[in-house]
Amino acid sequence: MAKNKKFVIGVDLGGTSIKVGVVSKEGKLIKKGFVDTLAHQGPKVVVSQIKKGIRLVLGDYEKEIGGIGIGAPGVVSMENGTVENPPNLPGWKKVYLSKVIEDEFCLKTVVENDANSAAVGEMVFGAGKNFTDFIMVTLGTGVGGGIIVNRKLYHGMQGAAGELGHTTIDFNGNKCNCGSYGCVETYVGNGYLVERVHKQLEGGQTTKINDLLDNNLNNLTPKIINDAALLGDEFAKSVIAETGKYLAYALASSINLLDIHNVIIGGGVAGFGAPLFESVRKTVKERVLSPLAPKVKVVPAKLKNEAGIKGASSLVFYSEK
Amino acid sequence: MAKNKKFVIGVDLGGTSIKVGVVSKEGKLIKKGFVDTLAHQGPKVVVSQIKKGIRLVLGDYEKEIGGIGIGAPGVVSMENGTVENPPNLPGWKKVYLSKVIEDEFCLKTVVENDANSAAVGEMVFGAGKNFTDFIMVTLGTGVGGGIIVNRKLYHGMQGAAGELGHTTIDFNGNKCNCGSYGCVETYVGNGYLVERVHKQLEGGQTTKINDLLDNNLNNLTPKIINDAALLGDEFAKSVIAETGKYLAYALASSINLLDIHNVIIGGGVAGFGAPLFESVRKTVKERVLSPLAPKVKVVPAKLKNEAGIKGASSLVFYSEK
Repeated sequence: MAKNKKFVIGVDLGGTSIKVGVVSKEGKLIKKGFVDTLAHQGPKVVVSQIKKGIRLVLGDYEKEIGGIGIGAPGVVSMENGTVENPPNLPGWKKVYLSKVIEDEFCLKTVVENDANSAAVGEMVFGAGKNFTDFIMVTLGTGVGGGIIVNRKLYHGMQGAAGELGHTTIDFNGNKCNCGSYGCVETYVGNGYLVERVHKQLEGGQTTKINDLLDNNLNNLTPKIINDAALLGDEFAKSVIAETGKYLAYALASSINLLDIHNVIIGGGVAGFGAPLFESVRKTVKERVLSPLAPKVKVVPAKLKNEAGIKGASSLVFYSEK
Repeated sequence: MAKNKKFVIGVDLGGTSIKVGVVSKEGKLIKKGFVDTLAHQGPKVVVSQIKKGIRLVLGDYEKEIGGIGIGAPGVVSMENGTVENPPNLPGWKKVYLSKVIEDEFCLKTVVENDANSAAVGEMVFGAGKNFTDFIMVTLGTGVGGGIIVNRKLYHGMQGAAGELGHTTIDFNGNKCNCGSYGCVETYVGNGYLVERVHKQLEGGQTTKINDLLDNNLNNLTPKIINDAALLGDEFAKSVIAETGKYLAYALASSINLLDIHNVIIGGGVAGFGAPLFESVRKTVKERVLSPLAPKVKVVPAKLKNEAGIKGASSLVFYSEK
């Protein structure tokens, strides 16, 4: 990226929509836009939607843009810019995304897995600015992860490292979408979490959550659980504390294995806020090897809204170093 | 290490004895010896025992020795050669072991944690020669581990990485010596394994193991379980298969997190041989994320006898690269 360029374009490629933005060196989102992914129409259409999205924000800033960063689902090779078998994007197999976009816009283009891109975003712009090493966890439908070692993204052998969500915390646990059993994702992933609470409500659990559901259990979301907790509801609070514990079991194993004691947690469920973080911290400290315990830091992600766009843009700033 | 030197001294520092040997570039043990550690007499005495051990084997080879490698328990900083709080070596706190030995013998000295040293040994001389990346597991009283990334030892933030034994496989499991619960070490560590089988025998389990115990349950060892399995005993075979499964639960989590699909297993319990390895392979493949499953390789360590000395010596050959 030419040193005199001030901005980067970040592209957050999702299954439903593509979010695009112009981001400054300081991590400020200057302009944003979005287009539909049109995933069901296959990779050619999705790629042309990505181009369309980029053009939406490129306009006024064209001469100031130093590169394009793309956060994509699935296994991504940062080295050759390919995206393989992304979940929710049917028919992809392997697409040389960085080359296609680079050729179109004559701008250096960096592609990375979205969980890894979130980790780089926190390192460059967010809560990881002062950490040499950290584990990034994103709590959403799935539980994603990224590992930063010595200010570099750790990729693993195929660029698929960081799958913390598929850490088994109970080998006899519930079946996970991945085919294994008792993965931490089956305890703290959005869908599983809601389903578990759903069952408890059906079982007659007394809680203020019931008052917030408009008589329809299908309205249950992590946000409603949080709202009930904020109203002082004990059951909702216990759900949040329990979620923190489950996550901590997986984190303690990862911290022991990696000898990385800094953890950044982002994503929707991280919105449970301080009570979640207190529970995670307490349980991680109880569970990790004793020399590590006093060093453990578990902090919330700083990039909240538009973390996807900012994370993607950070890939360009990061790759310059 | 001067290029014209043929040999290295490897030192395997244990709680009871210090094993020392002269090892060739090809990993052949040319001469060996051992001295008592005298751990209870404190660090000064232990250090002088290490020197004594080195002198035992140095004699004829003095002019051909290019360096000294030491595998030590506890947290070891390879960078500054210190050994901190090694278990079984009382009163150590922090000892600058590499400097002391280097000053005594005027030979480059490299110190590393014993589990990491085993991993480097397999990389340089053993089953890891052709792997770019692998996870090394040593099954003993504890379950140790080392991680090789791109032909380099992965140290983590404090040099304590690779603690695979303290991966939780059941958060409600038995209490571990480390203070946590359900660590894989509490399923496959020597003591825990023997204790579990012990209880089953006391409970009246019919098995040929009983015939091999000389009417004394305290004679039970992993070797006796293996002997019974080799005699076709179904219960003993099931213990071995189960041990493989437990280990695989932890390995699958680590493989997913690290995106490293090669595993080398050494140590006493690895002596269960093919039935153990088949069980580990099968369960790991069932449990890891599907893109990783076809790539998984789980192989036995090649350095068996004197793995400690050879691993320690490999540190010098490795640090030359």
